[in-house]
Amino acid sequence: MEQMIDSGVLAAENEKRAPALEQDYNTLGEKLARRGISIDDVTSKVAAYGVAVPSWGAGTGGTRFARFPGAGEPRHIFDKLEDCAVIHQLTRATPTVSLHIPWDKVDDLSELRQRGEALGLGFDAMNSNTFQDQEGQEQSYKYGSLSHTDAATRQQAIDHNIECIEIGKALGSKALTVWIGDGSNFPGQSHFTRQFERYLEAMKSIYAALPDDWRIFSEHKIFEPAFYSTVVQDWGTNYLIAKELGPKAFCLVDLGHHAPNVNIEMIVARLIQFGKLGGFHFNDSKYGDDDLDTGSIDPFRLFLVFNELVDAEGATDFNPAHMLDQSHNVTDPIESLMRSAIEVRRAYAQALLVDRAALTGYQDDNDAMMASETLKDAFRTDVGPILAMARRQAGGAIDPIAAYRASGYRQKVADERPAVTGAGGGIV
Amino acid sequence: MEQMIDSGVLAAENEKRAPALEQDYNTLGEKLARRGISIDDVTSKVAAYGVAVPSWGAGTGGTRFARFPGAGEPRHIFDKLEDCAVIHQLTRATPTVSLHIPWDKVDDLSELRQRGEALGLGFDAMNSNTFQDQEGQEQSYKYGSLSHTDAATRQQAIDHNIECIEIGKALGSKALTVWIGDGSNFPGQSHFTRQFERYLEAMKSIYAALPDDWRIFSEHKIFEPAFYSTVVQDWGTNYLIAKELGPKAFCLVDLGHHAPNVNIEMIVARLIQFGKLGGFHFNDSKYGDDDLDTGSIDPFRLFLVFNELVDAEGATDFNPAHMLDQSHNVTDPIESLMRSAIEVRRAYAQALLVDRAALTGYQDDNDAMMASETLKDAFRTDVGPILAMARRQAGGAIDPIAAYRASGYRQKVADERPAVTGAGGGIV
Amino acid sequence: MEQMIDSGVLAAENEKRAPALEQDYNTLGEKLARRGISIDDVTSKVAAYGVAVPSWGAGTGGTRFARFPGAGEPRHIFDKLEDCAVIHQLTRATPTVSLHIPWDKVDDLSELRQRGEALGLGFDAMNSNTFQDQEGQEQSYKYGSLSHTDAATRQQAIDHNIECIEIGKALGSKALTVWIGDGSNFPGQSHFTRQFERYLEAMKSIYAALPDDWRIFSEHKIFEPAFYSTVVQDWGTNYLIAKELGPKAFCLVDLGHHAPNVNIEMIVARLIQFGKLGGFHFNDSKYGDDDLDTGSIDPFRLFLVFNELVDAEGATDFNPAHMLDQSHNVTDPIESLMRSAIEVRRAYAQALLVDRAALTGYQDDNDAMMASETLKDAFRTDVGPILAMARRQAGGAIDPIAAYRASGYRQKVADERPAVTGAGGGIV
Amino acid sequence: MEQMIDSGVLAAENEKRAPALEQDYNTLGEKLARRGISIDDVTSKVAAYGVAVPSWGAGTGGTRFARFPGAGEPRHIFDKLEDCAVIHQLTRATPTVSLHIPWDKVDDLSELRQRGEALGLGFDAMNSNTFQDQEGQEQSYKYGSLSHTDAATRQQAIDHNIECIEIGKALGSKALTVWIGDGSNFPGQSHFTRQFERYLEAMKSIYAALPDDWRIFSEHKIFEPAFYSTVVQDWGTNYLIAKELGPKAFCLVDLGHHAPNVNIEMIVARLIQFGKLGGFHFNDSKYGDDDLDTGSIDPFRLFLVFNELVDAEGATDFNPAHMLDQSHNVTDPIESLMRSAIEVRRAYAQALLVDRAALTGYQDDNDAMMASETLKDAFRTDVGPILAMARRQAGGAIDPIAAYRASGYRQKVADERPAVTGAGGGIV
Repeated sequence: MEQMIDSGVLAAENEKRAPALEQDYNTLGEKLARRGISIDDVTSKVAAYGVAVPSWGAGTGGTRFARFPGAGEPRHIFDKLEDCAVIHQLTRATPTVSLHIPWDKVDDLSELRQRGEALGLGFDAMNSNTFQDQEGQEQSYKYGSLSHTDAATRQQAIDHNIECIEIGKALGSKALTVWIGDGSNFPGQSHFTRQFERYLEAMKSIYAALPDDWRIFSEHKIFEPAFYSTVVQDWGTNYLIAKELGPKAFCLVDLGHHAPNVNIEMIVARLIQFGKLGGFHFNDSKYGDDDLDTGSIDPFRLFLVFNELVDAEGATDFNPAHMLDQSHNVTDPIESLMRSAIEVRRAYAQALLVDRAALTGYQDDNDAMMASETLKDAFRTDVGPILAMARRQAGGAIDPIAAYRASGYRQKVADERPAVTGAGGGIV
Repeated sequence: MEQMIDSGVLAAENEKRAPALEQDYNTLGEKLARRGISIDDVTSKVAAYGVAVPSWGAGTGGTRFARFPGAGEPRHIFDKLEDCAVIHQLTRATPTVSLHIPWDKVDDLSELRQRGEALGLGFDAMNSNTFQDQEGQEQSYKYGSLSHTDAATRQQAIDHNIECIEIGKALGSKALTVWIGDGSNFPGQSHFTRQFERYLEAMKSIYAALPDDWRIFSEHKIFEPAFYSTVVQDWGTNYLIAKELGPKAFCLVDLGHHAPNVNIEMIVARLIQFGKLGGFHFNDSKYGDDDLDTGSIDPFRLFLVFNELVDAEGATDFNPAHMLDQSHNVTDPIESLMRSAIEVRRAYAQALLVDRAALTGYQDDNDAMMASETLKDAFRTDVGPILAMARRQAGGAIDPIAAYRASGYRQKVADERPAVTGAGGGIV
Repeated sequence: MEQMIDSGVLAAENEKRAPALEQDYNTLGEKLARRGISIDDVTSKVAAYGVAVPSWGAGTGGTRFARFPGAGEPRHIFDKLEDCAVIHQLTRATPTVSLHIPWDKVDDLSELRQRGEALGLGFDAMNSNTFQDQEGQEQSYKYGSLSHTDAATRQQAIDHNIECIEIGKALGSKALTVWIGDGSNFPGQSHFTRQFERYLEAMKSIYAALPDDWRIFSEHKIFEPAFYSTVVQDWGTNYLIAKELGPKAFCLVDLGHHAPNVNIEMIVARLIQFGKLGGFHFNDSKYGDDDLDTGSIDPFRLFLVFNELVDAEGATDFNPAHMLDQSHNVTDPIESLMRSAIEVRRAYAQALLVDRAALTGYQDDNDAMMASETLKDAFRTDVGPILAMARRQAGGAIDPIAAYRASGYRQKVADERPAVTGAGGGIV
Repeated sequence: MEQMIDSGVLAAENEKRAPALEQDYNTLGEKLARRGISIDDVTSKVAAYGVAVPSWGAGTGGTRFARFPGAGEPRHIFDKLEDCAVIHQLTRATPTVSLHIPWDKVDDLSELRQRGEALGLGFDAMNSNTFQDQEGQEQSYKYGSLSHTDAATRQQAIDHNIECIEIGKALGSKALTVWIGDGSNFPGQSHFTRQFERYLEAMKSIYAALPDDWRIFSEHKIFEPAFYSTVVQDWGTNYLIAKELGPKAFCLVDLGHHAPNVNIEMIVARLIQFGKLGGFHFNDSKYGDDDLDTGSIDPFRLFLVFNELVDAEGATDFNPAHMLDQSHNVTDPIESLMRSAIEVRRAYAQALLVDRAALTGYQDDNDAMMASETLKDAFRTDVGPILAMARRQAGGAIDPIAAYRASGYRQKVADERPAVTGAGGGIV
């Protein structure tokens, strides 16, 4: 396996932190043992948990106002793959990359697949793009794509999605994620029902092209880029889509795509109950689809989502896809993705610590106090040593950000990759 | 028919306003004729449109902090019926009353039915109550009702709902509305899935007792009285309920029961498309379930809801139930209900004026500007003369509030009904 | 005066609509006369009301996901001025243009001023830009501008604002609007107090450079482009700024910059009461800072804002600045700006119709019903004929959008101005 | 000191948990020592931190729909004091009680004061009540109190507040908290400015009666019980009040009284910066003013508030008042108050662990990643052993809820105090 970060640097960084980790891990192990929990079992489960990295997350994001690129911005998917390899090398938590077409389009797919293999990375769900117009594209998506009033535009969007499946097949992917920006900006602009019927019809054409061992994920979002109505606006509509399409169709939950105050973990539970939870786009947010680092704003909410997932673990056919989806405007994208991968594992580890037998008892007895404290006890546990041990045992870094900074990787790629000037946002 | 408001007073009030009304009506008629619309056709449709009044709306409402009763508070369902008769006499828009059990329970149902008939009032959907404990009740609803962990409590709630059906049958009602406050206040308190399974099982028992020509309406609400999770939290869950139960089950939309910013008219369109729109609880709100007078905060939103309803008019089996559901804390409840009935008709009349052929053309052409202006043109039309003419032609008041005030009804009932002192709210 | 739209086309369009307008105006005049209102007085007031157009509004806007340019996109401020001249010629409501520096920077300011004069346009408030990096700029605004931790970056932002004042002086502007994107994306990233102190200090330097007859407007916004905290996040902070700076400093209210559910008209009232209302950026929104056409989502809210303004009219030193600020993603920007200028005048006309003496009486008597109906009566009045008559009497169009479409202006500029390809949004 | 919980029971409970606590405390001590922190210093600070308990919190709360009382509901302030004594005995964190007049009115104030002393409890801020009508009250607060249009009603509200000051003086309190429900339900109902002027005038009368060593706290709230506008709607208005009144006037922040998504910790920072932070009403919420147990929904937000407080510690005249204010609808109020007192201390302890020198460095360098991780590191630390040790060393319980349950206190008071039947909510 090609290593992006020098193994000597990594070893030296780990060595500095190993004694404290050993001590903290043992101490935590004893504490958990008092609760009847084997820390090593938890560590094993955490080590087996992976989350996909979005290829586009490797570049600096932006807003409609501006984008402020950093040093060493990746120029294409091969650069992005190397950045993703850094993330996985240090965290051991991100074994796959999710591609976005056409941003990641290449001439030679086998070269891409081999590059992934060389870097120890597989390919997760494919992402299509019908929310932007590409140079030379015949039909414009200004007024929609899969739900457009014009049949030729819909067909172009269908064809593009099928092309994404074809690319994915060559890369070993097993899923297609469809997020569209279709909607309207003004009351009256679109007829809700006819628009949704067109969407469903188009999705059925894509579904028909889906291989038997693939899944298709539709993604809901309350608003943006449409500001009055959005075709797939919430999980209710998303569920109807998955139901209409068939057994290979599932709902994707992006944590930042809901109305204010909405109880997301309950949506997760409902989708699990009705067999339609496809997976997640993890990130965090305070206002809208802020796409901040996972767990950075409301870590308890993230834990509550994982509480539902752990509760459902072991059920037949329960296999949700986990992916980060963030926009890194003020941090080094590699650092943000590493931190977020760690946070997802943290929430998972905390959720594994919930005493579910006790919880069920409190729930049955309507002991609201002890039921909620049971969750809180798990959440409050500082599982950092478990996460660090899982990384270290798998050859990763005890402290990935420190090791990354020590490695000088960002400076190295900044030297190799030309500087990018800040592109203006969409407002002008 | 027994008239609550003296016909002489009413006639005198109308006489004062008739000349101006004639003039305004004719003028508007000419204006609409230029658009190819017959004003009399619109007036006829408006005249045929009725909305149910909730019996509990006749009393002054309150908050958890306090309730400030007004003069002449109704003491029981017979007083409430008389107040409702005033509303219908003056507006001609509220031919039915919706009862709430046990608040409106009586010993002699045929007496109640006859009293309704004497006052010209029918009985709309029955409303059950499992969100409060009643004196002498065996099981408490403190921790839920239809979804309670305890089977005996669920059975009590089921039985109560079946009792409501029985009462409704005796009164000529054809529907049962089920709103429950079940949910949880803290993460962990309830297991989302098991709780919802218990709810569905209980609802199936109620559904089994539903006569063939009845419908059952479930109502969703994002929060309150539960403050962390609510069993029927949104239209997605509500749709699943209606789907699980069967063809007589439908979703009720209360305009104040959604998360901030949510596009309610799109939810209405989705439920229509999938055959599960049961009807409405009309009111208006700015923050939460504020239960303010319909159309008082965002009249354009109300219009957009009616735009969807008029768009769907004529479809097979499309027959949603319309009811007001408000809390009148600072106004005379009779006045607020009259005004709200007028506002609902106003939105209906405006929606009837939408040039749907032109709208479809603009939508197909993605002419967002003209599509949205087409809706706005209809909304901006001052349809007041149509509403007034529909009332007057049916024997109601040109200006219901003025006629009501002139009648002295409130003072009369204040003299007859004992004064009520302000009950404290729920906070202590 | 140079006319962008052929006067013959305009006259022909008006001729078609004049008879109906005359009739509707007279009819409305009679109706208002019954309420004791002279329609001509209202028309005069409306005719005297103008709103500034933002130069950047003439181009198609976008989101962080994409921008879909239309035909004939303006290439520079001279093109934009011509588009603005169309808007003013047809609506007679937009006598001034608000510039944005550096987007509208030119070498020869007197040429620009003369071009404005030739087109009958004056120059409203100047807008500085420290939320984007410009080619060749020494310091980056990635981590802030006026509140940046680095003194050199703050100085650069100060200098830029002073440059905007200098440009404005040459053009006859009398105000500077300062909106910054400064804030943070993560808890801890910025120290709230030190950051705000730096901002205040920088603003004091700008204030010191302000001519005596100028005003400076600061603008608050809850979020975007910063997603955890924003330095000027709400009117409370904005008020403190205006207070700290001095008598020439005022608060600017953008209707889309508040938290969900916030009562904006009350903020307007508070700022008026404490002498710090500087003016408005008008637009409409459903979710966040959606920047939709004014009045397109919640026209009653717009009316309520104008109700406060009319209520305060006549007070000493009450002279708020009115400007549109929108992003036109799916409409022709000229059409959207014309419509919005009309809507602002509509809300103003409706607010002029409020019977303020009656309203005060109802308020004093706590007659919530009649007080709210008094506002509603004014809002429901279809003042379209007043607006059209005001335009026509001033040489504008009875139906500006129809006249604009008839003129073929968009096609003409599409032929003259090179096509623009869709720039990608900020996300990649 | 009179002990409500048997010391033997408490000792036995503590004995069971002491060995594990010792071990965990020592382990944490070593871990903190590695960061250069003395655990005992933190424990001392935590031990010195107290939060006031609201007397009304001892009873079961409710909603406008219903109230479900528990066993042993306190009948009057003397019962409530005993319950508060339990809370303080076990947590050692709640040395004072905050009274609400007239709910806690007694004939003999010295008896009340002595009872407090006997139980080891002092008296915190006094709370007035002008949001409910009391039996026999001359003027009604239906349409407001301190801002009412009627002078006699305002005077009655002023007199009541002055009476609260008098009572407080007799009890040793040093502050008056004024929260009013005044506002309006419909646009137009109230004139914003005249209403606020009346409020300010009334508050000045109360302020004039304030002893020199007292403070007056005004409290803002976005909505409820008024549903369109609220006189003191946000911190901006609240700041203006404190500024207008004078140096003894400060703003009280209730964590549940803000619009959705609002950054509360920044409001705290602004009020500190401008010298007007009076204190807190702690609770947690997901939707509105849910009044849930502190830290139960978003513990990280609570931590961020304390991060601001610790950052400001040591500044001159910085002495905010801390009080719980919750509604306990589904839990034993004593348990909820104990848990919340613990959570407040937890957030305080975590905030004490923030490496502020490092944080300042990261902030100055715009190292958003490390700055936010610095806060997170502190938040993730499981400070439970510190909290438990602080309680134990002060004679409290290692596990207050377990000790409380073991004591049988609730059953004891259930036997002594008559059962209460569920009062209906405010809706009927």
